[in-house]
Amino acid sequence: MSLRGMGADLRCRCIETESRRIGKLIKKVEMFPPSSHCRDTEIIAVKEICLDVRAPWVKKVIEKMLANNK
Amino acid sequence: MSLRGMGADLRCRCIETESRRIGKLIKKVEMFPPSSHCRDTEIIAVKEICLDVRAPWVKKVIEKMLANNK
Repeated sequence: MSLRGMGADLRCRCIETESRRIGKLIKKVEMFPPSSHCRDTEIIAVKEICLDVRAPWVKKVIEKMLANNK
Repeated sequence: MSLRGMGADLRCRCIETESRRIGKLIKKVEMFPPSSHCRDTEIIAVKEICLDVRAPWVKKVIEKMLANNK
C-alpha cells in the first residue's frame, strides 16, 4: 500500500494497494479518477492513529523527524 | 487507538493508544501538549493507505459514505 511522493509526479499515486480491511477510524477517503498519467481509479484512505507516547519507536520517529530539520 | 470526535470535545482526543509499530508511510504526526481538559501529551499519526478498488469491503465503505448523504 505504498504511495509515491505527492509532488508533480506524472504517474499513479499508488505503487501497490491494500485489499485487507484496515479497521475503522478512516478519517476520509480520497478518490482519484483515471487520468492521462494513470489509467486506474485510485482510492486513498486517510487514517488517524493515536500513538503511545511511551513506546520507544514513537520517540524514535519524532527524534528522526526533528533531526531531519537540522 | 480510537479517537473521539474532533468537535468542541473538552476531553482528551485519544480514548486509547497504539504501542505497536504502525508501519511506514506516516504522512504527518500531530502533537497536542497537555491542556486544561487533557493532562496527557497526545500524539496522532496520520497515515495514507492505497485501497484495492476491487475489494468488496472498499466498495461497501464508499457506498456507506454515499448513503449517509441521502
